[in-house]
This record gives sequence, C-alpha cells and structure tokens, in this order.
Amino acid sequence: MRLLQVKNYLQAKKLDAIVLFNKDPNFKYFVGSDFEHGIMLITKKNNLLFLSQLYRPRIKDFRVVQWKDFKKDFKAFIKKQKIKRVGIDNQNLLVRQKNFLRNHFKTRDASKFLEDLRQNKTKEEINRIKKACRITDKIFKSIINNFKFKTEADIVKYIKIKALELGAEIAFEPIIANAKNAVVAHHKPSSKLRKGFLIIDFGIKYKGYMSDMTRTVYVGKPSKKEKELYEKIKDIQEKCIEKVKIGLRAGKLYDYSLKLFDKDKKYFVHGLGHGIGVEIHEKPNLSLKSKDVLTKGSVFTIEPGYYNKKIGIGIRIEDDIYLGNNKEVLTESTKKLICVKLK
Amino acid sequence: MRLLQVKNYLQAKKLDAIVLFNKDPNFKYFVGSDFEHGIMLITKKNNLLFLSQLYRPRIKDFRVVQWKDFKKDFKAFIKKQKIKRVGIDNQNLLVRQKNFLRNHFKTRDASKFLEDLRQNKTKEEINRIKKACRITDKIFKSIINNFKFKTEADIVKYIKIKALELGAEIAFEPIIANAKNAVVAHHKPSSKLRKGFLIIDFGIKYKGYMSDMTRTVYVGKPSKKEKELYEKIKDIQEKCIEKVKIGLRAGKLYDYSLKLFDKDKKYFVHGLGHGIGVEIHEKPNLSLKSKDVLTKGSVFTIEPGYYNKKIGIGIRIEDDIYLGNNKEVLTESTKKLICVKLK
Repeated sequence: MRLLQVKNYLQAKKLDAIVLFNKDPNFKYFVGSDFEHGIMLITKKNNLLFLSQLYRPRIKDFRVVQWKDFKKDFKAFIKKQKIKRVGIDNQNLLVRQKNFLRNHFKTRDASKFLEDLRQNKTKEEINRIKKACRITDKIFKSIINNFKFKTEADIVKYIKIKALELGAEIAFEPIIANAKNAVVAHHKPSSKLRKGFLIIDFGIKYKGYMSDMTRTVYVGKPSKKEKELYEKIKDIQEKCIEKVKIGLRAGKLYDYSLKLFDKDKKYFVHGLGHGIGVEIHEKPNLSLKSKDVLTKGSVFTIEPGYYNKKIGIGIRIEDDIYLGNNKEVLTESTKKLICVKLK
Repeated sequence: MRLLQVKNYLQAKKLDAIVLFNKDPNFKYFVGSDFEHGIMLITKKNNLLFLSQLYRPRIKDFRVVQWKDFKKDFKAFIKKQKIKRVGIDNQNLLVRQKNFLRNHFKTRDASKFLEDLRQNKTKEEINRIKKACRITDKIFKSIINNFKFKTEADIVKYIKIKALELGAEIAFEPIIANAKNAVVAHHKPSSKLRKGFLIIDFGIKYKGYMSDMTRTVYVGKPSKKEKELYEKIKDIQEKCIEKVKIGLRAGKLYDYSLKLFDKDKKYFVHGLGHGIGVEIHEKPNLSLKSKDVLTKGSVFTIEPGYYNKKIGIGIRIEDDIYLGNNKEVLTESTKKLICVKLK
C-alpha cells in the first residue's frame, strides 16, 4: 500500500527511484523496524536493499543485494537497474550522503512526500502504536503500585528495565521531574524525591513504533490550590482532545488551548503536541501557528503543560490520539490526581 | 585541555568559533555525555551552549544561553559574540543544518581536526572506557554463570537488563550468533540455541563512553577440529595485540593479520578493528589499506574473525586496547574456549 504510493509518486514525478540511507527515519519506516545499515532503493518495479555482505537480514517486500566492494558494486548495480533520476530526503540526509548521491544521480527532494505519507498510518502501524500504548499504561500502573523510589533517576531505571521485561524498549530518555525541577519542561532526572508534583513523561517503542505519555502525580499531600491547578490543566487537556477532528488545522487547536489557559497562558511554554510513529516527533506538529492539518490516519499527542518558576510548580498531562474513522485516545492511564508517599 | 586545543586551532585557522549541533558525536564529546538538544559554539574566549528554554542543564565548562524565539535570538546572539568565520563538522552535519550555518557564517570544514582530537584520549576518558570494560567483563561472566537461555534473543535481553542494573547501558545492539548464524558477521539475533559456536558481541556505554568485546563460546561439545580452529583465531588475535605499538600504521597490522590467517584469509571478511570512545566506530580504522596510525592515547579493538559458510562455522574474538605509556588490554574476560550446556 505505502510502496504502491511511492511507485505512483515516482511515475508522477518522472523519477526512477527513491533512495534512502540507513538511520533516515524513512528508511526505518519502509523496512518496518530499526535497522543499522544499507541503502534502500525503491524503483517502479523493485524494492531493493543494497547492503554489506556482513549482514543478511530478511525484510518483507525487499530484495537484499549484497556488496563486497562498495564503490564498484554500487556503480554496477545502479547501471543494471537503470537508475538515474532519484528522489532524496533533504530533511534527514547528511552532507556527505548528499554529495555521494549527487555523484551518481540527478536528485530531487522528496522529503515532503515522505512526511505526508508517514502521517497517514496503516492498520499495522496503528496496531504497533496501540501495543506500545498498552505497555506504557502497564508500566505507569506498575510505577504507582511499586512506589519505593528515592530519586528521579530510580524511576528512569525502573521504566527502562520494565520495558525490556515486557519485550519492548523506551522510545526516548524518560523525563522525570519532581517539585521545583518540574518547571523545566525537559528536565534531566537525578534529584532525590520530595513533596510536590512529579511529572512522569515516557514512551515505549514496540516493533519500531512509539508511544508518548505524561502523567503528573503528587508526592505527599497537595494543597487545595495545587489540586485546583491540576484540575485546570486536566480540563484543558480534555477539552483540547474533544476539539480534535479530521481536517482541523493544528495552529487553530493551539489557539484554542491558549484561550483555555486564559490568564495562565504565559506558563504554557511548549507545543500542544506532535505526531508519533517511527519517530517520536513527526507530522503533524501541533505548535503555535502550525499549518499542519489533523488528517485522517494521524496519530499525535495532546499535552498542555504549566510551568511556573515563581511558585516552583510544573504540571503536564499527555495522551496519544488516533484519528481514524473515530477519534481514539490510545493511552488509557487514569488522569485522576494520584498521590504517592515516600518510603 | 581539549578545549585549549580547540582554541589554538581557532587561532591558527583564523576562525571565530567551532559550531556543532546536538547529535553530532563531537558535540557529545565536548559536553561530556549524551545530550539531545542545542547548538554548541566554542569561541576563543567562551564555551557556549545555545539552548531552548525548555532545557536547563548544568554542563561543566559551558555557559548555557537560552532562547525563546530561536531565529531572532540566534541572530542577536552571534552578533553580540562577533562570530563570523566558523569551523563545522562536514562528516556529521545534516544538509539542512549546513544550509542554516551557511546563512549565518562563513564556514570551513574542521572534521579532520575533531577526529584527530578525539583519537587522543584524556585520562578521564580512559577511566570511563575502563569502567565500561569492567561492566562488560562482569556481564560476560554473569552470562556464562547463568546460562539458562533458550534463544539468541534471550541473551540480548539479559545483557540489556544487566547493563541497566549495573548503572550503564548497551553501546550498540548486541550481536548474538549461534551455529550457522555465526557465519553472518552482523547477524540479527533471534534463533533457538543449538549445538555449535556462539558469538557474543556486545559493548557497554558508561557516562557516554563505550566498550566493545566479543567472545565465542561453544554450545555443547566441540570436535577436535573445531577446537583447533578456535585456537588458531585466538592465536591470531593475541599475536596482533602483541604487534600493536605506537606509530604503527593500521593497514600494516591488517596485512600482518592476513599473513597469520594464511590459507584461511578468505574467511576473514571485515576490518581488524576500530577506535572506540563516544562513538562505537571512530578513529583509528584498522581495516585493509587503512592509513590511520595507532597513535599514543588511542583506544581501539582488535577483532579478527573467521566466517566459513561451507562448514557453517563463525568465530570472532575481540578486545579493547589502550595505547598509553604502556599497551593495556582493557577487556579481561577469559579467552579460553568455554563450553556451555543447554538446559
């Protein structure tokens, strides 16, 4: 299906192939999992992976062509396949990779096509993201039920080990931010836990696909004012999710969230959300003035946050949303304010 | 010390700064650990990290400058610092990053300088690599002492969890290759374990610095011929380590290893080794015809391997070597052929 769309694109743009290098997220997207090496060439007729003989993977839909002498074999290979005009990914290409491609081909940027293609998830992709979300929920529950942590870093370690035990891994370095640290949106976890809000932001990668969830719990007993603040952020998050619909411009949703923040809008310092998939940040981008559209097939986060340095309080709540025939909230952990005790 | 060398380089090349983006290994090298964001600028006077206000890290030797409006603030910032001519890293720059830099500066490639700088490890770097090697040895021992694995993938999972428990993480996806799989140098582990050689190749990352070790054990009881083959590879590996000395060209050592392989040299299909540090492959490169020199301060692997598809046998032995005042073998796990039993 996705490969068919590539072939139609090649036809329309009069290109012989799309050429991608390993480590390009679009490369990962087509081979279906993390992959460390090789050059991928999708032509109208073939799906090829040009790879060192040190590797011998089996990849669905792709034929592996192995080289012994890279330069010589690559030249012969593209001559045989008659590949001259190619689409490349200017968003993710290294300078030296682009120089290499220019030596062999006439190139044209295909990055926008690839980004849009990836935004429209297939059923298989959705299933993997859902599975990643299930594992995320499971780990969050287990964090709460086994709350014996002394430091932020303890929680990070716990999440990483738990993810492996459940047959997955983390999607990105978890952000665990307690008390005053929570006012730094991307805090690096290390400190000893103490009374105050505790932001737990982590994601799981399952068969190459990612989830991303944040819950804010409270260590100790929150004041009435703190409870109210939490309820306000939760309410904003839920209202934004309600507002989500196919065809909505992301920038508009951002404006809506600012209205809900009202007098507190200066404490909302980052984007409202981002697409997820083979990357932890992909299309659509839900930031201020974003022109990206919430299209059918998109999966993205909704994550308003409040960061007030003066009073030393940070709160963020984040869910993953799938816009299919219906709107689905994929992360299911409770958003009721949980209070944990230090042991 | 390293920063001083950068400043001398700036002086000599009449540059105002070295500019690096996050995710560039050289960026990691200067900030001293994995780091996800920012632009680093080392000028003659200052060491600066230009960073979003969402982050607030403490980094030794660096002053963090935070932005709210990236474009506007960056322009004002470089004007204030009077940065015009900059050294960049063409080996690791993305096309779009290079375009961005060209819009703001006159650029000159400094990648070779940076590579050479990184090859000469400081005491602190050596200590981190040594610690990574200690953890590697510990995990290997623990794999052997707890050999209850059913599949190659079980061993991968065990290594990952063990690394986290020991306060570190893996340096790269472990290669665990048993029986016929072992003839593929970079095999993707999954299969059920059975009689035959078992290649265990993994590395640890400790505070940003990596180890890389391979041991080949035997599942079941090896034949006399298999034992002899193992001893031959072990002997080649040890003789190559003996030959290592300051000032030797890597290509020469490779030639020497081929002589030792003798009639079996066609079964040695990859490089003899590679530098390690903040990356798992850095200078020096110990492959055929490499002109890199084994300089004082280098840390690199020595890893001859034998891959015979006809008889379905693969063997590789790999240690990490530090060329200081003396030559030190940093990985200490036994190279005596270990036989494990399936449970």
